[in-house]
Amino acid sequence: MIIVITGNGKGKTTSSIGQIVRALGHGQKVCLVQLFKGENFYGEQKILTKLDGLDFFSFAKKHPFCFKDISKEQVIKECQEAINKLKEIVSNNNYNLIVLEEFNIALRDNFIEENLLLDVIKQLNKKSNVVITGRGASSKLMELADLVSEVKEIKHPYNKGVPAQEGIEY
Amino acid sequence: MIIVITGNGKGKTTSSIGQIVRALGHGQKVCLVQLFKGENFYGEQKILTKLDGLDFFSFAKKHPFCFKDISKEQVIKECQEAINKLKEIVSNNNYNLIVLEEFNIALRDNFIEENLLLDVIKQLNKKSNVVITGRGASSKLMELADLVSEVKEIKHPYNKGVPAQEGIEY
Repeated sequence: MIIVITGNGKGKTTSSIGQIVRALGHGQKVCLVQLFKGENFYGEQKILTKLDGLDFFSFAKKHPFCFKDISKEQVIKECQEAINKLKEIVSNNNYNLIVLEEFNIALRDNFIEENLLLDVIKQLNKKSNVVITGRGASSKLMELADLVSEVKEIKHPYNKGVPAQEGIEY
Repeated sequence: MIIVITGNGKGKTTSSIGQIVRALGHGQKVCLVQLFKGENFYGEQKILTKLDGLDFFSFAKKHPFCFKDISKEQVIKECQEAINKLKEIVSNNNYNLIVLEEFNIALRDNFIEENLLLDVIKQLNKKSNVVITGRGASSKLMELADLVSEVKEIKHPYNKGVPAQEGIEY
């Protein structure tokens, strides 16, 4: 099954973390591939990396929108490394669940070629449930997916100038 | 901060689990109070109950819509026990995060009196972040909240007759 969690509201990454915890609780094997998330920063990483049954990979830790010291070319190169890792997984896939965190952003910002990613997802889906998160999911990906949830922002304290809070936003 | 995760799509409970894992990763103290969830059934319970820093309470495990052997009166009584537990927490609250899982459903179905719950949430919010999940959040609760996300179902395999899958829906 291919699951897409998109939308502009808070709850996409936390939802994929919950999905991982749920699968691990059933003794499943899980692979998490993250883009655009620095390590040792998000609280969940400290817990997830200690749990049995999870393989965790992180690529393209910096998005050029947030970090001016990284070029688009560098991000494209690092996203290609993520795709290479996924292709490696395809050929030896024993995961029940594979989570592709923020890959929608990589598509939206043209860091990954759409057909390339969709093809890898189709291959992974032969043996695994695949979850793809991030705002701005492409229409082709949503068409391919079995399940799509859109997390809509109804109200957010950012809009009142409240800064991100440890344990809530990261 | 009061956070409401509502809507008809998949991702509300998994999002609150992710929020719990994130907070625990920062060494925070967390309390999870669940309604309408049987124990030893959901994968996440097997992981969460092993993590340091989380207190876990479960009330009204059966919703009369799904289980014909439970009366509305019984559920109201069990929801009242949940409220009593929350009042006990108010008077001795050292949690950073309190998650009220499926309490929106208890309001929607009139198992809990709205003003009673809103008052307890306001009290808890003096010392804790409070997350309330479940579809059909009341307008009063959303008005009180600082952050509201609506998880909208765009596409779901249930609608094609695909049954719930271990590790995905539970």
